[in-house]
Amino acid sequence: MSAGCGEGREIHVQEVALRDGLQSEAGFVATADKIALAERLAASGLRKIEISSFVSARAVPQLADAEAVFQGITRRPGAIYAALVPNVRGMERAIAARADEVNLVMSASESHNRTNLRRSGDASFQAIKEAAALAAAAGMRVAASLSCSFGCPFEGEIPAATILKWCRRLQEEAGIHSISLCDTTGMAYPALVRDLVGLVRQSNPAINLALHFHNTRGLGLANVFAGLEAGVIHFDAALAGIGGCPYAPGATGNICTEDLIHALEISGYRCGIDLDGLIGAAGELEKLLGHPTPGQVMKAGPRLRRYPADKPGPGA
Amino acid sequence: MSAGCGEGREIHVQEVALRDGLQSEAGFVATADKIALAERLAASGLRKIEISSFVSARAVPQLADAEAVFQGITRRPGAIYAALVPNVRGMERAIAARADEVNLVMSASESHNRTNLRRSGDASFQAIKEAAALAAAAGMRVAASLSCSFGCPFEGEIPAATILKWCRRLQEEAGIHSISLCDTTGMAYPALVRDLVGLVRQSNPAINLALHFHNTRGLGLANVFAGLEAGVIHFDAALAGIGGCPYAPGATGNICTEDLIHALEISGYRCGIDLDGLIGAAGELEKLLGHPTPGQVMKAGPRLRRYPADKPGPGA
Repeated sequence: MSAGCGEGREIHVQEVALRDGLQSEAGFVATADKIALAERLAASGLRKIEISSFVSARAVPQLADAEAVFQGITRRPGAIYAALVPNVRGMERAIAARADEVNLVMSASESHNRTNLRRSGDASFQAIKEAAALAAAAGMRVAASLSCSFGCPFEGEIPAATILKWCRRLQEEAGIHSISLCDTTGMAYPALVRDLVGLVRQSNPAINLALHFHNTRGLGLANVFAGLEAGVIHFDAALAGIGGCPYAPGATGNICTEDLIHALEISGYRCGIDLDGLIGAAGELEKLLGHPTPGQVMKAGPRLRRYPADKPGPGA
Repeated sequence: MSAGCGEGREIHVQEVALRDGLQSEAGFVATADKIALAERLAASGLRKIEISSFVSARAVPQLADAEAVFQGITRRPGAIYAALVPNVRGMERAIAARADEVNLVMSASESHNRTNLRRSGDASFQAIKEAAALAAAAGMRVAASLSCSFGCPFEGEIPAATILKWCRRLQEEAGIHSISLCDTTGMAYPALVRDLVGLVRQSNPAINLALHFHNTRGLGLANVFAGLEAGVIHFDAALAGIGGCPYAPGATGNICTEDLIHALEISGYRCGIDLDGLIGAAGELEKLLGHPTPGQVMKAGPRLRRYPADKPGPGA
């Protein structure tokens, strides 16, 4: 039996629990706990961690302590501490906080952009251009996230031409070469992932493409494998699979980091992560949140965990 | 954008919640509720429903009413009502109850077979041969399930040669042509599925192969897509994703029927199922069980469900 199909290819995972995960939580996680978790994540080998968002504290009170988190962490050499930034004001805060990388966000869906960012897609794009110029001047790494790339909860399907247009403009006009196609509300499926990734890579081969999936409808890891087959090597994921969808109460959130790392490693890909350390951090996060989280490997352990033969079940 | 890769190919789903799901539940679901649920499942278009197991009531008290369930259902024309059968005694009960199909079970893992079925693999195989002969004489459809085909919680990896051996013996010596490779404790991953299915189909092209996945480590639907790519068209799944793994408390169980049907249909496969009806049945099952279930589409709805643009979230 072959060990897998990954053949040792290196895959890069950006951890987003502290941002995309916590923003959906009802409670506020203490700043010191966020800092300790970020340090634990970096210690497990994660090389890029989105640790907060420079949005307004009124819009996302869960992340009102972005500056304090950036100030509090002991930065591990080689690790990149990133933040989501929705506008120029956020960019100024990110520069002041010395974020290593900013993730500038707009939506591929006009109505989602207006609902979430309170302005038109064009206005968001102009803000991204300005913010990217500020980041470049500050010597900061820049990436862009395109929400609703695989569908919109208000509009339904988003035409591929729209995704291609924004990717081209982000690259050519804003000078951003790292772009994440985000499945904000879990509408992606493998054939769509393969098609869309293929089109983007064909029309913009220089883009450093990342995929950001939510497991809202159970297809998170299936979509990752479709992305891998299409040549993508950058994925976002959240520890313990936290996060959620404001439109679907009870639905799970981001794909789960430790489930993703486990799936990649057993499939022959290489992530350079201490899975046990990550599982420990996921358990810690679950305790902090005070409710069960969707992560599976934290409950079942890695696939080759051996159990004593003392608990028969009825089989199949 | 293409509609998907399924190109209208018909996929057959066997529903196993009433057997593989309920056997893991702490409580006993009333016989009348089981019957009502089986009828609702058949009404939603499911063509094969495993509605109970003829095991000893001491071993699996949750399914002690197998005869009463078979007697109580109004059989829908075209639907197949199946039961799991672990031995010759179970076969006699299945014949008396007029099951349409029996699913004879043994494990690919010697230690799992001994733990779960309390005898050697060879002894189980002899019992299957006898039971299959009884079924054939009674004009009954017969299938076999090979537990732990993708790994064993006691032994670890199971060599492909062992799976091939049992498939060959089940087909040649026991005359069973429908064989289900069961990922009993969720150890499968896409590359392994493709490899093993490829080997089985190559060495036994006449076998009518089914796949039975558990989502224990989050890879359930990813494994289904790997199986589809390898040419499999028969899959087991459980309504609301119920079930579980006796070795991994809190881990999810079988792949979820409505999540599977949803994933297949949006990918361009054809299942002939009323998804809304199935989602309604999943909600009913969750109420019967009195605890949350892992199904995702029952919470989030189908991917193209539209939401009113009144609930902004912070994005990506």
